[in-house]
Amino acid sequence: MNGSQRCFAVIMAGGSGTRFWPASRAAHPKQFLALGGASESLLQAAVRRLQPLVAPEDVLVVTSERHAEETRTQLPQLPAANVLAEPTGRNTAPCVGWAAAHVRRRDPNAVMAVLPADPHITDEAAYVETLRRAIGAATSGDMVTVGVQPTRPETGYGYVQRGPAVTEGVYRVARFVEKPNRETAEGFLAAGDFFWNSGMFFFKATVLLEEMHRQLPDLAAFFERCDAAAARGAEQALVQAEYGTLTSISIDHGVMEKARSILMVPGDFGWYDIGSWTSAWELAARDATGNAVVGEAVVLDSRNCYVRGRTDKLIALIGVDDLVVVDTEDALLVMPRERAQDVRDVVAELKARRRDRYL
Amino acid sequence: MNGSQRCFAVIMAGGSGTRFWPASRAAHPKQFLALGGASESLLQAAVRRLQPLVAPEDVLVVTSERHAEETRTQLPQLPAANVLAEPTGRNTAPCVGWAAAHVRRRDPNAVMAVLPADPHITDEAAYVETLRRAIGAATSGDMVTVGVQPTRPETGYGYVQRGPAVTEGVYRVARFVEKPNRETAEGFLAAGDFFWNSGMFFFKATVLLEEMHRQLPDLAAFFERCDAAAARGAEQALVQAEYGTLTSISIDHGVMEKARSILMVPGDFGWYDIGSWTSAWELAARDATGNAVVGEAVVLDSRNCYVRGRTDKLIALIGVDDLVVVDTEDALLVMPRERAQDVRDVVAELKARRRDRYL
Repeated sequence: MNGSQRCFAVIMAGGSGTRFWPASRAAHPKQFLALGGASESLLQAAVRRLQPLVAPEDVLVVTSERHAEETRTQLPQLPAANVLAEPTGRNTAPCVGWAAAHVRRRDPNAVMAVLPADPHITDEAAYVETLRRAIGAATSGDMVTVGVQPTRPETGYGYVQRGPAVTEGVYRVARFVEKPNRETAEGFLAAGDFFWNSGMFFFKATVLLEEMHRQLPDLAAFFERCDAAAARGAEQALVQAEYGTLTSISIDHGVMEKARSILMVPGDFGWYDIGSWTSAWELAARDATGNAVVGEAVVLDSRNCYVRGRTDKLIALIGVDDLVVVDTEDALLVMPRERAQDVRDVVAELKARRRDRYL
Repeated sequence: MNGSQRCFAVIMAGGSGTRFWPASRAAHPKQFLALGGASESLLQAAVRRLQPLVAPEDVLVVTSERHAEETRTQLPQLPAANVLAEPTGRNTAPCVGWAAAHVRRRDPNAVMAVLPADPHITDEAAYVETLRRAIGAATSGDMVTVGVQPTRPETGYGYVQRGPAVTEGVYRVARFVEKPNRETAEGFLAAGDFFWNSGMFFFKATVLLEEMHRQLPDLAAFFERCDAAAARGAEQALVQAEYGTLTSISIDHGVMEKARSILMVPGDFGWYDIGSWTSAWELAARDATGNAVVGEAVVLDSRNCYVRGRTDKLIALIGVDDLVVVDTEDALLVMPRERAQDVRDVVAELKARRRDRYL
């Protein structure tokens, strides 16, 4: 994108399946679902949005071994080797570090954008411009994050406080803040210099790995052994054998929050962490009575429902309001929209009953 | 049953599929469904209940052509020829008359019990005793009906008023009454001599056919031509050609209400005309929180729901009360229990959309 500077994207696609059961399962987590109202999955949208910035051969996806095949199927435009398969999840620091080692091997001077697979973006042009600015800032060797303009006193996200400006649209990070309570979140919103932590990070691969070397030396050493193993075609065997022993820590806690200096690019591009069926309804196209339907339905005298079925099946609702109905081949969920958080209780009950086929 | 008197049973199984959609369909109407809380269908229960009274080879079922195969499959204990297939529905008078012709051919002196396939019976011993009495009364050449002891001022049924006693437990019918309005129904209940018209009739086949000869001579003539055709193995061809031209009228209106004399045997055996998913819930086994589940379900914080799924599928409910959830291979219905009558609106909508595959 930058003329002289090659940019890779690393998409973290390690989601689990609990909150979107029964559409999401252990074998088919959230990122594989079309939750943003379009027919593409969240993962496919995440890759498609990068088109103006990153060539497909420079997009890496880190996912778990069990999801690697589906990831490659959903992203046929990516070389198969660009899907990195973790034998086991060790949080995001090992995931990002391993991807950085791959990027450094391909281009030691490259910048990389680390992006979660899940968020839904409504203003894609603004998103691309924000990323372009963040990538530009990372080119000079800084570590950069994107702070999302908050629209409500959200207690479910971490925050990042904006510090002094560095250049146009780029600021120092004053501090990272954990998920606040309601009162604190309201203070953040009123203060105006707090932004949602988007989980997006931008840096040269070498800069990240040097920072890891300082803060998480064991991890950094492992990635150097990965380089050596890769040189003799034995990287996956090494990963297979040792990945599970790596320090399990997030990139936020393990690296970013203790890094010497982090820059921040504020962004306002309609960023939604689709966290439950409630937010899926909020983002979906709804008819005049507030119903959102995926699939074929007969909806009589019902309002503000989210109906998600299959193309070869009819769903009929009569006289119900604010209901979520999600129907899949082998499982069906019915609940009020406001109970969306309790889907995990169903999953827990199924685990307790050892009904693995439904997990 | 009666020693000297052979008794046939004629089960009228001509139901359509509207009120129990999506479990019932045009091709799979109500009588084929297990709605009584057991695993047997209503039709299978209707035949099984007769065991103490009628031999399987003397049970005839009249159904439509399109349901003949399923009827034979559900009732393997019946000779295939005992399932009479109507090319088209012409209400109950032709159906009963045709069955009477068959009975008369097999035994000119036989009594027949005409029974609808649909009702659910909770006290089967009392039911059998009531039928035994009604059959006994018919042996002497009378036409007999069973009046069901009413338990509420029901406006959905016709009534029969009890006249003077003839012998123990057998009365003359004073009159048949159409479905009353609420006030009238309350008066009936208070009066004590009004009973629900069960749609069950008992008579010698010859007596019915003679009565038809008097009241519906065209029909009676057709059945005589059936006898003649049967003698040369051509009955089904005649039926195929002419059944659709027969007078379409109910046995109640066409024969019973204008017959010279009808007897009535009162009965009290837990008679339920399962008319909707609401009554299916009422009759089903329910857990301590009022939920009735057919299939596998995880039901959390929900009360008084009727859940009907499949054995190979899981249904999860969270935080819903008084809901009906019926899931089939290709269609799903969700509605409050109190909206059960509106299922027909879904069926109407599907017809309007020409979505025949769901009808």
